[in-house]
Amino acid sequence: MSIQHYAPGEVINISPDGAKFESAKSETLVRESHIEVFRFILNAGKTTPEHTAAGAVTIQCIEGEVELNLAGQIRILKANTLVYLSAGASHTVKALSDSTLLITILLQRE
Amino acid sequence: MSIQHYAPGEVINISPDGAKFESAKSETLVRESHIEVFRFILNAGKTTPEHTAAGAVTIQCIEGEVELNLAGQIRILKANTLVYLSAGASHTVKALSDSTLLITILLQRE
Repeated sequence: MSIQHYAPGEVINISPDGAKFESAKSETLVRESHIEVFRFILNAGKTTPEHTAAGAVTIQCIEGEVELNLAGQIRILKANTLVYLSAGASHTVKALSDSTLLITILLQRE
Repeated sequence: MSIQHYAPGEVINISPDGAKFESAKSETLVRESHIEVFRFILNAGKTTPEHTAAGAVTIQCIEGEVELNLAGQIRILKANTLVYLSAGASHTVKALSDSTLLITILLQRE
């Protein structure tokens, strides 16, 4: 994942890659003490390892279609849909087609 | 703003309203102890009062075009763009056309 962070107030383009998907790369957009936002590219057929976000998380599908497995409960996320997961919710994500997700993690660092 | 909250894992449609914009209403999508997500409708020409989010915030433009005024610095947000603001950043938002924003606020409640 390439390192590319934006400053507060900077306008960040999160458009679908569409025909340019082949050259798209995952990137971290924001990394601050209490929030991380990243744009995650997942090619069709790929599945993430089972993982738990470091805090509450929203997962927004920007393009494509993914299958979200929440401890056996399956949710399908298409473009323009969003889910919220509580901190500690274990999950995997499988791309049913070439997909881009916008992940926003709330870090509870004390 | 109507009250409508979704449970963790529930799939939330955040598509542009398009031709149905006239009947669109702002709604709270998620309201948990550390995060709030809401879908904010702002008609063309309307401006919010100057305000400060309760925590760090991301503002994503889903449709339309808004002018974000950050203490005098102007940013234009079109559909498929996002900005991050640090906690306490005072701002106003003016809709240049009928617009829908997705607002994610990180609440630092101790």
